[in-house]
Amino acid sequence: MAQYAVGIDLGGTMIKAALVEREEGLVHELSVSTEAVFGPSHVLDRIAQAVRQVSEFAPGGDIQGVGIGAPGAINWERTTVLYPPNLPGWEEVNLQQELRNRLMTDMPIFVENDANLAGLGSAHYGAGRPYDAFIMVTLGTGVGGAIIYDNKIFRGTTGAAGEIGHMSIDYEGPPDRYGIAGAIEAYIGQRFLSHYARHRLLSYTDSLVHNMAGEDLVDLTPLMLFEAADQGDIYAREVLEWAGHKLGCVLASAVNLLDIRKIIVGGGVSAAGDYILDPARKAIVRSVMPSLRDGLAILRETLGNEVGMLGAARLVFEFLDEHSPSRTSLATG
Amino acid sequence: MAQYAVGIDLGGTMIKAALVEREEGLVHELSVSTEAVFGPSHVLDRIAQAVRQVSEFAPGGDIQGVGIGAPGAINWERTTVLYPPNLPGWEEVNLQQELRNRLMTDMPIFVENDANLAGLGSAHYGAGRPYDAFIMVTLGTGVGGAIIYDNKIFRGTTGAAGEIGHMSIDYEGPPDRYGIAGAIEAYIGQRFLSHYARHRLLSYTDSLVHNMAGEDLVDLTPLMLFEAADQGDIYAREVLEWAGHKLGCVLASAVNLLDIRKIIVGGGVSAAGDYILDPARKAIVRSVMPSLRDGLAILRETLGNEVGMLGAARLVFEFLDEHSPSRTSLATG
Repeated sequence: MAQYAVGIDLGGTMIKAALVEREEGLVHELSVSTEAVFGPSHVLDRIAQAVRQVSEFAPGGDIQGVGIGAPGAINWERTTVLYPPNLPGWEEVNLQQELRNRLMTDMPIFVENDANLAGLGSAHYGAGRPYDAFIMVTLGTGVGGAIIYDNKIFRGTTGAAGEIGHMSIDYEGPPDRYGIAGAIEAYIGQRFLSHYARHRLLSYTDSLVHNMAGEDLVDLTPLMLFEAADQGDIYAREVLEWAGHKLGCVLASAVNLLDIRKIIVGGGVSAAGDYILDPARKAIVRSVMPSLRDGLAILRETLGNEVGMLGAARLVFEFLDEHSPSRTSLATG
Repeated sequence: MAQYAVGIDLGGTMIKAALVEREEGLVHELSVSTEAVFGPSHVLDRIAQAVRQVSEFAPGGDIQGVGIGAPGAINWERTTVLYPPNLPGWEEVNLQQELRNRLMTDMPIFVENDANLAGLGSAHYGAGRPYDAFIMVTLGTGVGGAIIYDNKIFRGTTGAAGEIGHMSIDYEGPPDRYGIAGAIEAYIGQRFLSHYARHRLLSYTDSLVHNMAGEDLVDLTPLMLFEAADQGDIYAREVLEWAGHKLGCVLASAVNLLDIRKIIVGGGVSAAGDYILDPARKAIVRSVMPSLRDGLAILRETLGNEVGMLGAARLVFEFLDEHSPSRTSLATG
């Protein structure tokens, strides 16, 4: 019997909701603005509304539960978000309880870090499907990560594992937002990469980005670099190569530590595809131990943003599997 | 009922064997020279002999199995060593089969990487006992590592996880033995640290190491640095501080990736204790994400070399637990 769950992507500007069927994947999706300035209670109302709306597309409106992806830290029980960035006034919010109250239900509701859910979604619906274990990297505003092992999220001691973005490639390098020297985010996080590219390309006035990014390149974004690279701009390509090389270096350290040899790259910046990933592939081979090089691969996630919502819904299906003698008895029970 | 197993530490120069009682720990130990130059078959005979000798100290000579720690890579099934360094002519050797033949037994015999076994030994008999999860670092000729998670060795995809020594702290740094730029081993592995210290201290002729390490400091070892540091030598202390700082930097990356916040340091170089570990503690805090700093600790393994043999024996007890309905039925069966 078909099983449905709702996956939510809670962001600072948009709330996205997807109805997910266990085998089929994404069935329906919708977006509403977060309206974060009105505070937690208002946002929680909007999440509940999105859940109700998207559930209507399930047969009989029946869903088995709700999974929510949120930025930042989550407690071990996956009920509560802790000081999520971009959500003013949130501090600690028990999303499970707040949504159960609003939806007048006691069904499974869980929250998990968004990068971890991108990994889980990829493992079951995306580029990660062929692999039991891989490292997920999401290149966006920040650099997120997840470790998928035995088809599950490797959670560490408190549930916060996977922070690849704050692994360092240079102990004397530039600081990231936490002051960590040489963290990979301080090179290829969106803001940092744009900053580097601006200064690097300012004097190359024949670079195509000068037609895109305004005077003194003040509006330069990674997306413009990809577009310019795609149009043959060697300067933009050079910047992306610089970024990809550094990505490969940090991933090599992760592979040496974990002996997990598949890496899947998703998120907005991954749109740059092979302009970033080819140099990463060259760099990683040089810095992974020879005995760990067999089967080493950096792949691009083929799904877009929906991978996180698929992962969120997957949380519900995993919970059901763990708490029922069998799927059949659950579907009929 | 008491349960006994033998733990072996197979090194290039010495074979060490310990009789281990499950709860009590180490009961008896002995060492024989490896005589590695005579090739695998000779070494295997000597291992078998050591197992027989040490088993005699168990009541009735009864042991439940043998665990063996070896340098380098091990296959997933833990039966076979793959091209172990320092053991000429070994290539791939099925230690399980070879020893079962020699001991005329079909009891559990397993081999595992020596750094992983130091971690497992620490988890059950050493400084790691209070923790379900920790990162083990062994500072010796090389820099070894292990991830202990849920009181077990985290093995990765092929069983080779934990190579902290080849994680990089500087993508443009000096090469380790595999050519990996800035790998931590290239700073604090015994040979590299001695080399650095020699050049650093050569002109400081009032450093105490000049009384220990011969002309031009050609014989300088990390042990001499510790001795000099202990006698108040500020130059030696400075070198150890330099090493500890770098150790802290690489460990921070591991903590950010794993969310495992306890680190246990063992191995010969760890004799330097707080001369290395204090600077490591200072460095790690700065490079771990703020949300992961609670409970962060770098501890020194209190056991010596026997920790690896205890871990080796533990492999046997784990196997028995997994393959018997209960310990009681096994002990009486």
